Amino acid sequence: MKKINFKSKFSKFTDQWSPKVIAEMNDYQFKLVKIKDDFIWHKHDDTDEVFIVMEGQIFIEFENETVEINEGEMIVVPIGTKHKPYAKKEAKIMLVEPAGVVNTGDNEGELTAPNDQWI
Amino acid sequence: MKKINFKSKFSKFTDQWSPKVIAEMNDYQFKLVKIKDDFIWHKHDDTDEVFIVMEGQIFIEFENETVEINEGEMIVVPIGTKHKPYAKKEAKIMLVEPAGVVNTGDNEGELTAPNDQWI
Repeated sequence: MKKINFKSKFSKFTDQWSPKVIAEMNDYQFKLVKIKDDFIWHKHDDTDEVFIVMEGQIFIEFENETVEINEGEMIVVPIGTKHKPYAKKEAKIMLVEPAGVVNTGDNEGELTAPNDQWI
Repeated sequence: MKKINFKSKFSKFTDQWSPKVIAEMNDYQFKLVKIKDDFIWHKHDDTDEVFIVMEGQIFIEFENETVEINEGEMIVVPIGTKHKPYAKKEAKIMLVEPAGVVNTGDNEGELTAPNDQWI
């Protein structure tokens, strides 16, 4: 039975916007991501998505507002909701979502990262 | 769009071993719990269960080992696995699991808490 240490897992990668899987619960995955600057507008048509800020500060732009999320805070982005995350300085976050969710949702492109990158 | 602050949510209750729901993602819930001393042996026959330690230290006894989990660490208890959580001092944890999971699993009794206690 193996516990997972977030700091130790974050030390295993440096690339940004490229989610790393650290755990699976049923058909859901827990993924760590380092983010900085702007992501792209996108939505996930099949699922809600949870962002937990582990270190630093992020912002998520929605169509009508921008939400600031700090260390020790989380947000649920509802299914089908357009959003654009960004961070002014590098921030460390954890995503919780079903396995197979593509990071760029309906807007695949340069920032689309491969799935199932376990660390 | 509402973010959730863990410290603020933990300040809203004092009882132990009684999970409080703070968020729902699809049919999963994020629950905060304060725990101290021994829980009971139990298992969940229909689901894995995630424990994230937000503050302090907890232990989970399994049939063949005991795992110590500290702040900044998590563990996935696999479906059907007997376990008994405990904490020497009060610890604050977050559970992630499907809505409807009963805290005492297959071993209902005094410590069985009501579900869907939103804070």
